[in-house]
Amino acid sequence: MNIYKNMKTKKVDVAIIGHGSAGISAYKAAIKHTKNIVVIEGGEYGTSCARNGCMPSKLLISGGNAAKAIRDAYSFGISTHKTEIDDQKVMERVRSLRDQFVSKITNHIENIPKTHKIQGFAKFLDNNTLQIGKDRKVTAKTIIIATGSTPRLLPNFSELGTLGITNEDVFEWKKLPQSVAIFGTGVIGMELGQALERLGVRVTIFGRSGNVGSFSDPDIQEAANHLYHGEIDIFPGAEIQEMVPERKKVHIRFTSMYGNELEQNFDYVLSAIGRIPNVKKLDLNKTSLDLDSRGMPVYDPESMQCGKSNIFIAGDANGEKSLLHEAVDEGTIAGKNAALFPKVSKGSRRVPIGIVFTEPEMAVVGKLYRELPKESFVVGSVDFSFDKRSQMLNKNRGKMNLYIDKKSKKLLGAEMIGPKTEHIAHLLSWAIGFHATLDQLLEMPFYHPTVEEAIRSALNNAKKKI
Amino acid sequence: MNIYKNMKTKKVDVAIIGHGSAGISAYKAAIKHTKNIVVIEGGEYGTSCARNGCMPSKLLISGGNAAKAIRDAYSFGISTHKTEIDDQKVMERVRSLRDQFVSKITNHIENIPKTHKIQGFAKFLDNNTLQIGKDRKVTAKTIIIATGSTPRLLPNFSELGTLGITNEDVFEWKKLPQSVAIFGTGVIGMELGQALERLGVRVTIFGRSGNVGSFSDPDIQEAANHLYHGEIDIFPGAEIQEMVPERKKVHIRFTSMYGNELEQNFDYVLSAIGRIPNVKKLDLNKTSLDLDSRGMPVYDPESMQCGKSNIFIAGDANGEKSLLHEAVDEGTIAGKNAALFPKVSKGSRRVPIGIVFTEPEMAVVGKLYRELPKESFVVGSVDFSFDKRSQMLNKNRGKMNLYIDKKSKKLLGAEMIGPKTEHIAHLLSWAIGFHATLDQLLEMPFYHPTVEEAIRSALNNAKKKI
Repeated sequence: MNIYKNMKTKKVDVAIIGHGSAGISAYKAAIKHTKNIVVIEGGEYGTSCARNGCMPSKLLISGGNAAKAIRDAYSFGISTHKTEIDDQKVMERVRSLRDQFVSKITNHIENIPKTHKIQGFAKFLDNNTLQIGKDRKVTAKTIIIATGSTPRLLPNFSELGTLGITNEDVFEWKKLPQSVAIFGTGVIGMELGQALERLGVRVTIFGRSGNVGSFSDPDIQEAANHLYHGEIDIFPGAEIQEMVPERKKVHIRFTSMYGNELEQNFDYVLSAIGRIPNVKKLDLNKTSLDLDSRGMPVYDPESMQCGKSNIFIAGDANGEKSLLHEAVDEGTIAGKNAALFPKVSKGSRRVPIGIVFTEPEMAVVGKLYRELPKESFVVGSVDFSFDKRSQMLNKNRGKMNLYIDKKSKKLLGAEMIGPKTEHIAHLLSWAIGFHATLDQLLEMPFYHPTVEEAIRSALNNAKKKI
Repeated sequence: MNIYKNMKTKKVDVAIIGHGSAGISAYKAAIKHTKNIVVIEGGEYGTSCARNGCMPSKLLISGGNAAKAIRDAYSFGISTHKTEIDDQKVMERVRSLRDQFVSKITNHIENIPKTHKIQGFAKFLDNNTLQIGKDRKVTAKTIIIATGSTPRLLPNFSELGTLGITNEDVFEWKKLPQSVAIFGTGVIGMELGQALERLGVRVTIFGRSGNVGSFSDPDIQEAANHLYHGEIDIFPGAEIQEMVPERKKVHIRFTSMYGNELEQNFDYVLSAIGRIPNVKKLDLNKTSLDLDSRGMPVYDPESMQCGKSNIFIAGDANGEKSLLHEAVDEGTIAGKNAALFPKVSKGSRRVPIGIVFTEPEMAVVGKLYRELPKESFVVGSVDFSFDKRSQMLNKNRGKMNLYIDKKSKKLLGAEMIGPKTEHIAHLLSWAIGFHATLDQLLEMPFYHPTVEEAIRSALNNAKKKI
């Protein structure tokens, strides 16, 4: 008996599963070539980025930094009495601007014709067929998986009940709690941890790797490991002995990297140990796709095509970096290729760039240190302690390493922790994009006094070594 | 009778008059080719930049911005009671860091051999001969004029006695005055004015042009004229009726652009109406140089050579922009050419960039609007009001125009007022340096959410118009 026989079936050229950043841009790219498209969304329309990712986290950070600026003013000769952080107002601002940003995206979604939208969870029946919920079916020439990702949870996290949270819960807080334990020293853990600490929450950050952030350059990693210890209580190599709910708090007993056993209670435990692509429930095993050991489809990052199949994957769903601008590019490439299938072309990908918006900021650009063949490059180094503009701003902490190819003298990549690195990272990523050599870079303007002059110091350092 | 007959005469290959930023780099460049050099300094060794220019002004601005950040925190939900600006501490920090920066430069000067230095004021006797003070003479194969510049004073300024000051006096203040009238809406007037206002000084800025800052793009100029009115008391088109010392204050009676007559008293009047190259006392008329109507030698900005002569001119002394990085480049070119004379080569000049470190910041990059032939380019525009990251930071004010060549599609220049424009300006100046086209620029990474995304908006706006 064929249980699918009586289902309503919709036939389309392109079916897009998921309508976040990647799905939206896939739709925009595909609609240029075919009007026969459907977007299937199981959860809320809109993006992780705007709803509970980059946007609200940067809003929370703005609040945290505003509070920190008051404390920092002292070093300039300016003091204040009694700083009051109105946490309700802080969170209202976060949500109100967040909701504005989200509404711009949902407005866009409302403009998509109703016939192009299906609400429900999709599962593959085969390479061309999706089942939506219980009683609907979509057959499609091509399918784009743009289902996004979900926070990875700590083992036994469910035992904590409502005391165990993720980044998605933080932005719904009407008031700030007194204390939070954060697990994870990556971008989410560090950004939220520092912002909450600056807003008066008692924060402890736990990690397992022993490192703060994740640099591949041991030199920059060491700088990062040191620099945050003056900023926040952080145990990057902690071993958790016990974590149990106890009188509406979570009791954590742990051993530090240096062997000390400590105990603390927290209002909440925030799991920020990574994100999991939302592909588990798609029944990918019903397709012909090659799946890797994690159950992830093997795909080409330049065409977003899974093998030689009619299925494409874009955005967080593919398990690469969770970055909005990459998700948008991937969606655009996937949308175009899905619409024009079987004609599949490679889209151009941008120079990689990653930024953690903490203070000091962390960033990586272009090729990572570990991706470069040893002996093939020199390292141009600068210590921000001696950078004049950074000294003026009282932010002269951090280090940057640039990687210059020995043969071509081209800038290949950089890793850094320091002040204003979101801007430095852009400048360097564009320089890589323009295939700039060391000597060409030294001919660019470096206005005085700006933090950009630190780049020149690093370039001059590399020049000496070449 | 030859009055110079009994003078001590020193014979050198290269004589450098002035030992600021341009003179130092001229020395460094020349010494690679000849050891027979002399540097003649009439005033203090060291640079305007470090002593009373870019460096201490940015230090004062850091203090002002720290105070402003406390007021701004309110919009994030954070309030303080009773902010105390300890102006002695503020000024001590300015001077102590300033002195550190200056000492690095004077250390360098101390390392110059004594035989290479002469203290005294130099005058030309002819193209190859300088008189130093009363009883010394230097004959040189080539001479570099690197005498810097001096603040231009208001007419009848001397009548104000010690109540009339320049930027050079500000950094020596042990305490801040209660009130200052600033004349000049250029970089010095605006930067010092806003910094002092933020540090609690009552400031009024007067201008004559009717404009704030000096943009050539009428669109950006209009934005600038509007934006500062919420920041500071500014009368960009004021007509001064009377300015007289009165009971240890300066009494100013003036008519605003809109015809209102106003009167105010100030502790000081600061003249910031421009700078004058220090060439008047050099007796340039004794040389064969072509002098323009202002008495300035005509020179080639790529070789720094005055006409076809053996005399070179570098830094503020040539009456171009007063910018450290340009002065250093000019000194380097002049030093090399002076040492290798008569072999004179053109040095490469950087993409022009100018930044005013106010809030919002102002910047110009590459070709100015007025330098571009009409109809040859399109304008890509962005209003920072709608930029998301700027909204998050509560700094979403300003506007930027990019100029894209219609034929080549290359970025030619930009004028802007807005947040983080010192970084945006660097990014754009490098893009111009790499001869980037509109489409290439749109392939560069724009991390989300950063203010750099506003560049993409402006590029997309230009793309629509092409």
